[in-house]
Amino acid sequence: MNKVAIGIDIGGTNTAIGLTNREGKVLIKQSIPTPKHGIIELYLDDIVKTMKALINKFTSSEVVGIGIGAPNGNYYDGSIDYAPNLSFKGKVPIVTLLKEKFQNIKKVHLTNDANAAALGEKIYGGAKDFNDFVMFTLGTGIGSGIVVNGNLLYGHSGFAGECGHMLIEPNGRLCGCGVRGHLEAYCSANGIKRTAFELLAQNNNTDSILSNYSLADLNSKIIYNAAKSGDLLAIEVFKLTGYWLGIGLANTIHHLDSQAIFLFGGPLAAGDFIIKPTVESMEKHLLPIYRNKVKIIPSQLNGGDAAILGASSLVWIENN
Amino acid sequence: MNKVAIGIDIGGTNTAIGLTNREGKVLIKQSIPTPKHGIIELYLDDIVKTMKALINKFTSSEVVGIGIGAPNGNYYDGSIDYAPNLSFKGKVPIVTLLKEKFQNIKKVHLTNDANAAALGEKIYGGAKDFNDFVMFTLGTGIGSGIVVNGNLLYGHSGFAGECGHMLIEPNGRLCGCGVRGHLEAYCSANGIKRTAFELLAQNNNTDSILSNYSLADLNSKIIYNAAKSGDLLAIEVFKLTGYWLGIGLANTIHHLDSQAIFLFGGPLAAGDFIIKPTVESMEKHLLPIYRNKVKIIPSQLNGGDAAILGASSLVWIENN
Repeated sequence: MNKVAIGIDIGGTNTAIGLTNREGKVLIKQSIPTPKHGIIELYLDDIVKTMKALINKFTSSEVVGIGIGAPNGNYYDGSIDYAPNLSFKGKVPIVTLLKEKFQNIKKVHLTNDANAAALGEKIYGGAKDFNDFVMFTLGTGIGSGIVVNGNLLYGHSGFAGECGHMLIEPNGRLCGCGVRGHLEAYCSANGIKRTAFELLAQNNNTDSILSNYSLADLNSKIIYNAAKSGDLLAIEVFKLTGYWLGIGLANTIHHLDSQAIFLFGGPLAAGDFIIKPTVESMEKHLLPIYRNKVKIIPSQLNGGDAAILGASSLVWIENN
Repeated sequence: MNKVAIGIDIGGTNTAIGLTNREGKVLIKQSIPTPKHGIIELYLDDIVKTMKALINKFTSSEVVGIGIGAPNGNYYDGSIDYAPNLSFKGKVPIVTLLKEKFQNIKKVHLTNDANAAALGEKIYGGAKDFNDFVMFTLGTGIGSGIVVNGNLLYGHSGFAGECGHMLIEPNGRLCGCGVRGHLEAYCSANGIKRTAFELLAQNNNTDSILSNYSLADLNSKIIYNAAKSGDLLAIEVFKLTGYWLGIGLANTIHHLDSQAIFLFGGPLAAGDFIIKPTVESMEKHLLPIYRNKVKIIPSQLNGGDAAILGASSLVWIENN
């Protein structure tokens, strides 16, 4: 029988569920709303119903396991812990709950979404040949997943890899977590918008396309399109983003001596507008022993399937 | 027969060699100058002669291995690579060279001095019960050794743990490596002196004891004694040092989710003058999930023996 894995990606708005094979093909997938009612039993019923419907379409395949990616997902105890963007309160023992529903599936694992992205890249994507790398996901915030000696680094309590909350500007911008100066406040999709507004405020560039947008309406795609059309302020936004991201990546490399850094998320669509200044700043801030060695690579996973693939990749890890 | 390990600590000025038992007692030790002549063969003869003299005094003991701590010591290939403070040029294959001289000793291992300090703490000191911790050594520079899942983290090319070179102040003070704003430029013994001078320059505190010292004459012991006697500027120096160090430690914890941070070096003699503001700043800069969990612990090894103990600890690691 063909072996397949189920990947469940729990987001603040939607939950994506899919069946994948070992080669990283998503065979079938479906998305359901992540409810706001906070009643885990009802949500679990929705998930189980969707999973069963998907499995029933692949009866000739053997489901070898379930992998779940979720904000604040803790690998060690299999629970989602106090996730601020989900309506379920406290600790949700999602692994135990799903094991009860699918007693014939032995492997059920959970991790946070950024760790899942890192593992997805290792199992299916561009990191197959790398054993020491870090994945940075640039979205509303910045997540990161650290791979060391071929395995995810979980740390003492399962929360390693919150690199988005490293401080790069003392007393700098307010981060969503309440502390000032974190990388996330500068280089997340949201941080990039803030950089545009900072520059507009400083230089009063009324000739920039970006001067026509509100903070609510602006996004990194608009800034990218402006940069492509030659808008100098938009180009400067990506230069500054790269400057700060390069500092962050250099700090990470000084800790981990990684072989490569993978980058994932909407802002990466800007390509060299963001990659070039990032590499330049990273190299400038590195000790000579690390220079010209560390590869910066955009994620090789299809953006639309990446979350399901990341979650399902937990199933294929041997020692899991 | 009693089992003993040989520890060799290669410093810029002196090389300390000692025999230690598994419990962390230094049975005998001797120091020889680290020569400036750059001829590795002559230096090796000195080391071998000293080692044989020490071993001959413990003929009833079995030497199970040799551990070497050296600046730029690379665990993977057993060579000291381009160490700027040593007179030997290029890559010095110290492990191979020593194995040739002591063919009956199978275990010969090398790592850098900060990694050795971390491992020494794990094998003999205060970190016996910790599997996820980081050692910061505050000396002329700042070294660090990272322990993850009970093992030293070496990274892709053997250079993980250069946390002293993480950037904490963009365009800040010039670090010895040539980059501006690194932690080392603020919180090493040398960085602490620079903080004193920065404050003297800013505030013109002619009433401070420290206003009587040149940069060359000042050291962290003098600043500590001044702080003890109530010198407000000296107290402020440690407060600022703790502020910056706390930022650095928080960045490290956001990467690694460590259980504890150990601190080693001269400035730690200042005790709570430096520890208290460090803890305060670290907690302030951490995500809530890490707060009030991570212990900050001064090294429990005897300062005078720590380098030999750190080096010799490499011998007692099972998978070495």
